[in-house]
Amino acid sequence: MAVYTDISEAELRKFLTTYDVGELTSYKGIAEGVENSNFLLHTSKSAYILTLYEKRVDRDDLPFFLGLMEHLARKGMSCPLPVHNSEGQALGVLAGRPAALITFLEGMWPRRPNANHCSEVGKVIAQMHLAGQDFSLTRKNALSVGNWRPLWELSATRANEVEADLDTEIEADLALLEAGWPTGLPSGVIHADAFPDNVFFLGEQFSGLIDFYFACNDFLVYDVAILLNAWCFEKDGSFNVTKGMALLAGYQSVRPLSAEEAEALPMLAHGSALRFFLTRLHDWLVVSDGAMVVKKDPMEYLRYVRFHRNVVSATEYGLRRMDDIT
Amino acid sequence: MAVYTDISEAELRKFLTTYDVGELTSYKGIAEGVENSNFLLHTSKSAYILTLYEKRVDRDDLPFFLGLMEHLARKGMSCPLPVHNSEGQALGVLAGRPAALITFLEGMWPRRPNANHCSEVGKVIAQMHLAGQDFSLTRKNALSVGNWRPLWELSATRANEVEADLDTEIEADLALLEAGWPTGLPSGVIHADAFPDNVFFLGEQFSGLIDFYFACNDFLVYDVAILLNAWCFEKDGSFNVTKGMALLAGYQSVRPLSAEEAEALPMLAHGSALRFFLTRLHDWLVVSDGAMVVKKDPMEYLRYVRFHRNVVSATEYGLRRMDDIT
Repeated sequence: MAVYTDISEAELRKFLTTYDVGELTSYKGIAEGVENSNFLLHTSKSAYILTLYEKRVDRDDLPFFLGLMEHLARKGMSCPLPVHNSEGQALGVLAGRPAALITFLEGMWPRRPNANHCSEVGKVIAQMHLAGQDFSLTRKNALSVGNWRPLWELSATRANEVEADLDTEIEADLALLEAGWPTGLPSGVIHADAFPDNVFFLGEQFSGLIDFYFACNDFLVYDVAILLNAWCFEKDGSFNVTKGMALLAGYQSVRPLSAEEAEALPMLAHGSALRFFLTRLHDWLVVSDGAMVVKKDPMEYLRYVRFHRNVVSATEYGLRRMDDIT
Repeated sequence: MAVYTDISEAELRKFLTTYDVGELTSYKGIAEGVENSNFLLHTSKSAYILTLYEKRVDRDDLPFFLGLMEHLARKGMSCPLPVHNSEGQALGVLAGRPAALITFLEGMWPRRPNANHCSEVGKVIAQMHLAGQDFSLTRKNALSVGNWRPLWELSATRANEVEADLDTEIEADLALLEAGWPTGLPSGVIHADAFPDNVFFLGEQFSGLIDFYFACNDFLVYDVAILLNAWCFEKDGSFNVTKGMALLAGYQSVRPLSAEEAEALPMLAHGSALRFFLTRLHDWLVVSDGAMVVKKDPMEYLRYVRFHRNVVSATEYGLRRMDDIT
């Protein structure tokens, strides 16, 4: 959802004078993006997205996010391109907030992803991993294994309101993941939030990847683990291995996983499910209703956590043996 | 506000097959409209608004609303034109709701209306009143003087939570308005909700009138009374008579008010301020937070009610004597 901040035409026109985008003809607040205010602009030239960065986004991270979009777009990836103003800047100020104008990508995100969508997103994220290798900026993952315990502690005392004995269960998960979290896997820039609503299609064809506001440096295969959670579970909580196979094969057709990465996948998928469970639980229990955060049911991800806890090998996700693939 | 119902691309594509609008390339839920879910669509041909009618809108009223837009657009007014499907219908069904596709109007609503905007909206509403004279359907005003007491009774017992002795004050207003409400004034189709967010401009030029979902048959000058409330008060609650003059002169340049209409204006302005106060009070006190109604501060309109209560003549709004005008 979104649009925390409304803007007047006068201030928007003034902002746009420094951009070579033609005459403004309309702007509508759009119900997308959880962290920021987004507007769809029409001008005499084209369509654009205007984003005002609200307080949940750290301003120091904006050069990384905008620079990454630009880097990836220059490498030929279909992602939004930040428009530079007459001073060469991608970042301006509007309504007292950091603001960026980016190109509008046509396309629609799949409300009901199928195996083809999964294959496409696997390929696209692998392409992003390769294209990001020579990006010069870095950003630490602020929601990695070391951050989960402090996050958990904000909700822990009330967790049993959600389900009996949940605290014991999550404590055990945390201990397991903290002790066993892999090291030394291939790293680079990951998207870290490539959920279906951030991946656009025109028909069955991928058309654009958006919303890089969780992007960071981490194990590349951790992004694959996030994709498995975001794309391959059905509404009833079951894991669809056909989708998992399509996603993993799509990824490996561009960037094959090493044996170490494949071996780490169950633990990473378990961890990434816990990460989304913990942020949702926190929003659910702790963040006030007035904060306009969209609260998503944390139980969905608790079911995924429980699934991954019992996975022994990545073949259970549909990963085919390396020598079948390469 | 906006987007209660999300829709999948598959169901949207299916819906659009019966419309000659080209290939769908994107759709975004937009943060506009209080009662319905609205999407901005891009197709290979043009841009459109898709509206899903939610439960606060009576389905039986939809032919009136859509027919009116069509009637006004055919008369040359700049308002959205409902697109007909291959069966000649302006109304379809999508996601289990009545749904209509209408043309997208470029333009922006003025966040800070000036006297020129007021003059323009006065003219446009007068044009609408003339253009609506031969519209064949009718719709009773469901929020006129006879409806205020029942509405008030839903909030009355809790009104003093908002301000001490508010109940006595509102009871006196109701008695006064019910006893003195005019009869026999020129009637016709009125917009009844022409607030700034429903009137678009490109620069200083009017570009479009939208959102006819409160339109009904009532005294034409009652619409003028609504405009005075919606456009001519400043944020501090003061009435800006320069704006009032511009608005009334704009209106009268297209449709002069009769002496009886001018005389009735203070009572109608008082009543219309009370009508918006009562609906806002009801949403504030009675409607649950989960209903996703945007709650607007009722006190703003209470200040207007108090202002109008002391107005003796329409000249206080900036109405010039008839013989100065005509």
